Amino acid sequence: MVSIVPKSYDPREFTALTFHDATGRFRDGSDTPRAYLERCLATIAEREPVVQAFVAMNQAGARAAADASTTRWKAGRPLSAVDGLPIGIKDLLETKDMPTEMGCAAYRGNFPKRDNAAVWALRQAGALILGKTVTAEIGGTHPGPTTNPFDPARTPGGSSSGSAAAVAARMVPAAIGTQVGGSIIRPAAFCGNVALKPTQGGINRGERQATSMSTHGVHAGSIEDMWQVAIEIVRRAGGDRGAPGLFGPLTPPSASQPECLIVLETEGWAELDSATRSAFEALLENLRRADVALLRRRDHPWIEALEQAIANGRALCNAITGWENRWATRNLVDQFPDGVSARAKAALERAEAMTLDEYRAALTERASAQLRHSAVAPLADAVITLSCPGPAPFWSGDVPGQPLAPRPTGDFVFNAPSSMLFAPAVTMPLMSVGAMPVGVQLMGQQHHDARITAMARWMVGAVTPVVVS
Amino acid sequence: MVSIVPKSYDPREFTALTFHDATGRFRDGSDTPRAYLERCLATIAEREPVVQAFVAMNQAGARAAADASTTRWKAGRPLSAVDGLPIGIKDLLETKDMPTEMGCAAYRGNFPKRDNAAVWALRQAGALILGKTVTAEIGGTHPGPTTNPFDPARTPGGSSSGSAAAVAARMVPAAIGTQVGGSIIRPAAFCGNVALKPTQGGINRGERQATSMSTHGVHAGSIEDMWQVAIEIVRRAGGDRGAPGLFGPLTPPSASQPECLIVLETEGWAELDSATRSAFEALLENLRRADVALLRRRDHPWIEALEQAIANGRALCNAITGWENRWATRNLVDQFPDGVSARAKAALERAEAMTLDEYRAALTERASAQLRHSAVAPLADAVITLSCPGPAPFWSGDVPGQPLAPRPTGDFVFNAPSSMLFAPAVTMPLMSVGAMPVGVQLMGQQHHDARITAMARWMVGAVTPVVVS
Repeated sequence: MVSIVPKSYDPREFTALTFHDATGRFRDGSDTPRAYLERCLATIAEREPVVQAFVAMNQAGARAAADASTTRWKAGRPLSAVDGLPIGIKDLLETKDMPTEMGCAAYRGNFPKRDNAAVWALRQAGALILGKTVTAEIGGTHPGPTTNPFDPARTPGGSSSGSAAAVAARMVPAAIGTQVGGSIIRPAAFCGNVALKPTQGGINRGERQATSMSTHGVHAGSIEDMWQVAIEIVRRAGGDRGAPGLFGPLTPPSASQPECLIVLETEGWAELDSATRSAFEALLENLRRADVALLRRRDHPWIEALEQAIANGRALCNAITGWENRWATRNLVDQFPDGVSARAKAALERAEAMTLDEYRAALTERASAQLRHSAVAPLADAVITLSCPGPAPFWSGDVPGQPLAPRPTGDFVFNAPSSMLFAPAVTMPLMSVGAMPVGVQLMGQQHHDARITAMARWMVGAVTPVVVS
Repeated sequence: MVSIVPKSYDPREFTALTFHDATGRFRDGSDTPRAYLERCLATIAEREPVVQAFVAMNQAGARAAADASTTRWKAGRPLSAVDGLPIGIKDLLETKDMPTEMGCAAYRGNFPKRDNAAVWALRQAGALILGKTVTAEIGGTHPGPTTNPFDPARTPGGSSSGSAAAVAARMVPAAIGTQVGGSIIRPAAFCGNVALKPTQGGINRGERQATSMSTHGVHAGSIEDMWQVAIEIVRRAGGDRGAPGLFGPLTPPSASQPECLIVLETEGWAELDSATRSAFEALLENLRRADVALLRRRDHPWIEALEQAIANGRALCNAITGWENRWATRNLVDQFPDGVSARAKAALERAEAMTLDEYRAALTERASAQLRHSAVAPLADAVITLSCPGPAPFWSGDVPGQPLAPRPTGDFVFNAPSSMLFAPAVTMPLMSVGAMPVGVQLMGQQHHDARITAMARWMVGAVTPVVVS
């Protein structure tokens, strides 16, 4: 077997693992879901010792489910277009056949034996629930053991660390992640995946209704699989309670070229390294050459107003999420004083210093920013911005005796906007900086998930990627 | 000891248990929280064998907490105005020192050892978490063993059955309930309590974020205790994630006479028995005599439009809640086939027949009704309507071999409006029909919780109650 461990990342050469193009062979019998799964398991056997994407696996259950899927495809009666798709589930979501430990010592051995709404829906659709992927502790910033598949000295990003890495290492064609601040889009961008962070409420979070701005989302090797997994969940389990759920077609939206995009700099612009900035400007130039008009903050006062409304995004997201988690985290720390990281305890301390009036002010600031985003809807088809502020940072653990590293899974500065705006975002692997992936994202108006997916499909197929050393 | 078990209910004679007027004596030493608790425990010892309001108690813990409270009051340093208040907690909410069994066989022995956000806040405020009160199964319609304190042959209402009965039987001055359709206001009305169902999101539900229209609320013997308990929770734990939480003063709002009220008939009007209808009309006449103007559906087209927008309230609430619970209930039934009632399984079957598009249509109908409610805001100070469609029904259990009784804890027809409108409601014990309590409620615009509490305080003090045989 030829080693498939890459030495570096080049978006022009890397071939992601896909599923949608295998189903034709499942129908004609030249391939089977069981054989597809075995190929995934072989990749896992080769790469997992270094990548460490999974915290639990149910290979026997996945094999049995794959055999059942094989029978259905042969009979021409698959349960859905993702019947037989091996998928990783972020370990914040409950699964009836595997523990849910949330990357947190306090939850070691936690095994509620029920399926999160999205997992339940995926099983109904015939997907193979292969394993639980590593999450940063309780979806926060304290990292697990996962390494970046393109450089084991670097973080895969977080908190959906294992989901991002499992897809990037070609272990599975798709994985479920969750985002509160930047936990889907950022790790996907560091790992060269596509990923969808849907409109707030788009995918039923089930018991994981942690905060007012958290979502489930999908990491995948292709836009087609990303959309199909999302819509198969939603057609069975809907969106969050009180939300209409993801809108869009039951098959992947056709590629669609945007006429005009708004380029958002965001709070992250001033902190960008020059290589990443020049890569992004080169990508924008490639878009212009493809006849996509671009608008920036200097071109329209409403865009400038939006930039200003999101200029405090990181602090705003941290304040809102901190307040909303403080009761649950306090309970956890009181019950398991040694079961929670120092990093999480420090965040709790900051949250417990907040007042209700400060939280109310933050909600008003968020709602106001959402109005500023609505205001730019008539100006362009969508927003384009970076998905992360450069290649994944190096990470080898905290240094004893030193202050805790502030952001071991990377900076969510380019992710705070879509989170606080409740807006859908799709990240695309269109750049390489220093031989590592750097994602670019499209962000749409609320409920425009299918529209930005269609534009992302066009971009991935038609826009020349950028490689900067 | 003279028996305090009432033979019937007369709002002019019944004296509810109150706490707010005891704290002066805690300060001067003529009474203590421990002595107050012991009086509650004596009442519980006398009445609990028939009323059966509690499913679990922590008397030792409450006594220790009462002693600590006694010390604080003597030192002039109470933690809050509810320091020392013995309170019952509906058994849907987690408590770190008692199991949480949710009236459901599948949850027997469930003991997560953490406090729901509201319970956590109440402990911070010094309240005594005395026991868990009986809930209908998982907050639905399948009843527990609790009987109505004014007639053991009748239901106390549900699903907050034990909270309503414990307050009405003078076992505790206040108790926490929850409402999705009518589970706070209706049992309070059947039991002669006051109760607040706050604006949607008003009180932090913590882990109990079951559906898009569920709330925590407070049953009490007095408006003063009702408000104080609610605001002490909110100042410490806030509202639901993403909601600003209950607005209002840190002490009970002063009594305030409304100038004008809208009388809503609702879907329940046509089904009213004549005694209840004449009692309500007599109460409205008492309001008119006190110079309160009343508007009805024939008086203004916007009121007629609101009546029409809520005319399908029961079915709408059941559809929305059924859809939102179906994933969790399906998990429960799959895991514990014998642990869930036939009543809950039948509700699940109805919910599983729904489509996502039907759910989306129901959300739109609900949002549209909320706009109709906003539209009448300029016409009057609040809405007045019945809290229940007559006295609590008799209930002695399902008859083997017969179809399941449709609503053993009573009909929520007068509660669906405030639930679907996300509107605050306060029920007041202002009527007796056939020697049983029948409540009347004020419903306000969203976030007008304090305003309707002020008007309810005026009504309870100034409007002559009505007794109809």
